[in-house]
Amino acid sequence: MEIPISLDPDNRQSLQAQLHAQVRALILGGRLHPGTPLPPSRALAQQLGVSRNTVMLAYQRLTAEGYLQSREALGTFVSNELPESCLMAMRSAAPAAVAGEALPTRRPIPFQGRAHAVAGARRLTWDFWLGRPDPHSFPFKLWRRLLNRALAGAGTHFTDYGDPAGLPALRHAIAEHLGPARGIAVDPEQIVVVGGCQEGLDLSARLLLREGDSVAIENPAYQGAAYLYESYRARLLPVNVDSGGLRVAELPEDGAALLYVTPSHQYPMGFTLSLERRLRLLDWAWRTGTYIVEDDYDSDFRYRGSPIPALMGLDTHGCVIYLGTFSKALGAGLRLGYLVVPRQLVAPARTAKALHDNGRPWLEQAVLAEFIASGAYANHLRRIRQLYVERRECLIDCLHEHFGAAQVTGSEGGMHLAWQLPPELPRASALQALAAEHGVGIYTLQSGAAHDFGGGPWHDQVVMLGFSSLGVKQIRTGIERLAAAVAAARSPAAPPLPAREPSVARRGQALRPRAL
Amino acid sequence: MEIPISLDPDNRQSLQAQLHAQVRALILGGRLHPGTPLPPSRALAQQLGVSRNTVMLAYQRLTAEGYLQSREALGTFVSNELPESCLMAMRSAAPAAVAGEALPTRRPIPFQGRAHAVAGARRLTWDFWLGRPDPHSFPFKLWRRLLNRALAGAGTHFTDYGDPAGLPALRHAIAEHLGPARGIAVDPEQIVVVGGCQEGLDLSARLLLREGDSVAIENPAYQGAAYLYESYRARLLPVNVDSGGLRVAELPEDGAALLYVTPSHQYPMGFTLSLERRLRLLDWAWRTGTYIVEDDYDSDFRYRGSPIPALMGLDTHGCVIYLGTFSKALGAGLRLGYLVVPRQLVAPARTAKALHDNGRPWLEQAVLAEFIASGAYANHLRRIRQLYVERRECLIDCLHEHFGAAQVTGSEGGMHLAWQLPPELPRASALQALAAEHGVGIYTLQSGAAHDFGGGPWHDQVVMLGFSSLGVKQIRTGIERLAAAVAAARSPAAPPLPAREPSVARRGQALRPRAL
Repeated sequence: MEIPISLDPDNRQSLQAQLHAQVRALILGGRLHPGTPLPPSRALAQQLGVSRNTVMLAYQRLTAEGYLQSREALGTFVSNELPESCLMAMRSAAPAAVAGEALPTRRPIPFQGRAHAVAGARRLTWDFWLGRPDPHSFPFKLWRRLLNRALAGAGTHFTDYGDPAGLPALRHAIAEHLGPARGIAVDPEQIVVVGGCQEGLDLSARLLLREGDSVAIENPAYQGAAYLYESYRARLLPVNVDSGGLRVAELPEDGAALLYVTPSHQYPMGFTLSLERRLRLLDWAWRTGTYIVEDDYDSDFRYRGSPIPALMGLDTHGCVIYLGTFSKALGAGLRLGYLVVPRQLVAPARTAKALHDNGRPWLEQAVLAEFIASGAYANHLRRIRQLYVERRECLIDCLHEHFGAAQVTGSEGGMHLAWQLPPELPRASALQALAAEHGVGIYTLQSGAAHDFGGGPWHDQVVMLGFSSLGVKQIRTGIERLAAAVAAARSPAAPPLPAREPSVARRGQALRPRAL
Repeated sequence: MEIPISLDPDNRQSLQAQLHAQVRALILGGRLHPGTPLPPSRALAQQLGVSRNTVMLAYQRLTAEGYLQSREALGTFVSNELPESCLMAMRSAAPAAVAGEALPTRRPIPFQGRAHAVAGARRLTWDFWLGRPDPHSFPFKLWRRLLNRALAGAGTHFTDYGDPAGLPALRHAIAEHLGPARGIAVDPEQIVVVGGCQEGLDLSARLLLREGDSVAIENPAYQGAAYLYESYRARLLPVNVDSGGLRVAELPEDGAALLYVTPSHQYPMGFTLSLERRLRLLDWAWRTGTYIVEDDYDSDFRYRGSPIPALMGLDTHGCVIYLGTFSKALGAGLRLGYLVVPRQLVAPARTAKALHDNGRPWLEQAVLAEFIASGAYANHLRRIRQLYVERRECLIDCLHEHFGAAQVTGSEGGMHLAWQLPPELPRASALQALAAEHGVGIYTLQSGAAHDFGGGPWHDQVVMLGFSSLGVKQIRTGIERLAAAVAAARSPAAPPLPAREPSVARRGQALRPRAL
């Protein structure tokens, strides 16, 4: 083992004294732990270009002081019993980074940002978490085959930089997919491969925003977008949504630096932006010189009616930046998505992406390209659409069964729906807490990665339920338990429900939750 | 196949007319290509919830107009022979994004940036390109084994979001590596996994910079850093370097928002920042409240002398952000590196990373974690260090042999050296052009991903030579050819050298370049 020591022959201190001080500092700084072997004196002398005697004398002094221990035939080690005085010195000499004392430099940190909610540690037994694909749906076998095939042809792809805008084969495959699927005719040059929608949002913000610029945004909106623009110190202009999507008539007359919108399946409410509003929106964008950022995060799932062409497919003036992701149809662990930019943004987007991170990793881009081009992606989409349509219907049926004419929106597509609570139920936050006590995860707008700017009709009156990662049996049990919990809360005499599935508890088995 | 059509029953136009207009627009917009089959009328009627007759009548009209063709028993297709009038309409009706006309919206694009040079298409036969690992050195076999093992234990890692700061196992492995290797005692919490140094630079800029802030930077500097800060509209304050590294005495007295520095192996000149200057630099940073961004891009390779502990390892005040990368020791195609931040930046860095892209992909983080933890990374480093030390010595020997007492700097470590050209040789740019004519790639500062702010002694007098991706035979031939090219340029009567390796040309074989 080499240890990081550097001796300066021109220093007033002797080489031996320098060596002593530096080894001592490494120990006190916590960089050489108790019990760590030191290099043999001969090896260290060679490394440092000094006489062996210099090293031996330094080691002897450190041993005498209790920092080092010498063990017959084994060599020299950092002492396991550092004297109390050492430990005290350690506390005062250790750098802040080690000791955990925050000693900020005098300048305040300019970055200000709030973290948006993503699926985290929360794992309730019946968790209607949002936007999470069924973990069993991932095409493991095929993925493994394609990975191994890509590896065999890796050539210099691991060792060289690739195109910062993404692997050409993948951009081509995405372009081919977008034409029929979303009505967007696109040249692969216009595509920038990014790490999911979130990086697409960031990259478009880097292209279009300066401090203090205004950003028009849906109200309520996706938290990851709202907090991102906030961190760029943009001025946010919330525009309400209704059952036809964004209320285009309420857009600011003088435009904005950008407008963020989720036309296919408004996040969080699930509304679809009507064709008429789409056309009026595009007209507004052109008239006011506003760029539209179209986040099409879950448009792969459409269960009723025809898909409406993406805004970008209707745009004739190059006002739209389109964001797509593979986090919903495949999985967020891949961190793959794409940005489609109008022609005039191709060069700046490429430069911004290169300056940002020189592009995405090669291997999974290569695998995904083959997965799409071979038709496997289209098959996969068909399969999971079928799965999700069943779950969606089951969830709606259960809500109706237990809560009467439950008013749900957004069920025509996507992976979640929004339930506008009737007056006789508790408010959303109270209902969420009640449900959680019974092992059921349902989400208010704020906890469901949405941001409510206020002023809308939905404050604490909406819960969001994702249905894509739960089987129909879990969905049924989850809603039954929710109904029972509500009933029990009304008549406090009723016995509380066990927090876990009774059959499991009874058998006493340590079953892993299905999702793991 | 579903096509993106949406009919509005409340529209004044009949459903049939709407359908006609929308299919026509899809064809004219280039979204349905000639020869594409249309859905059977029964299927489309079902999709749209209209009578089959409506669809049949719309198809008939489009066929009569020449847009569609009906083929007996096969169905209806987009016409292969669109009438001239259609094609003209296509040109005028197609959106800008399709037709390639840039119709920018009125607002100018705020992003201003220059793209830095990364290894691109250039592939000369003897290419001394910079910072490129030997493509044959990548541990393919082990990597494949670890990939397949990780896949087998993937669980929900593909479908769920991970920690935005990176896979805990990888952060732990990196922390363990940094202690002995760089003298940095670090808690895994302080590590953020990023996509190579470039993303580390970007993330630290996002944390620390506001428009117009000043950034102190080495002169000459790494282009990827200089252009990045420029794109953040920072005010760049270049500080000259000499053989002791950054001239710390010339740092601005009132500090800066951040200082960018490459202490281990200054990019591009290869100098090592002396220990004395390191301590003075840290003192300056603390006194002025400046954050230091320490880019330690190639410190894994040290051939002479002891490694000097990283700045972060010497820092007692939490002023340093450390950047490391796996692009040099493993390969840039992995896009993996890390940022180590002082305690007070842990929370903001995590939030900034989440808002930026929700973290890096799972699979290769898992593989790399295992690669490091198992000790394979240490072995790999030893192996390639040995390889590179031979190449470095060969290159220095060849330069001395052909160009006398060639003055090279930066050869104590890293993957390239800088050659300060003697007066009798052409200027760097002329020498690069001459070499390229003979199939030899050598690089001026600017073409070698460095930026010279001017005012230094090296303008057009330095060429950079990377030695890590060429075998000793290639290095020898490359320098021989360079010497011959210089000699030939002096006596123009001499016959020109063939641009490719003679033995290959003679055999007439279409050999793939070694790198592929």
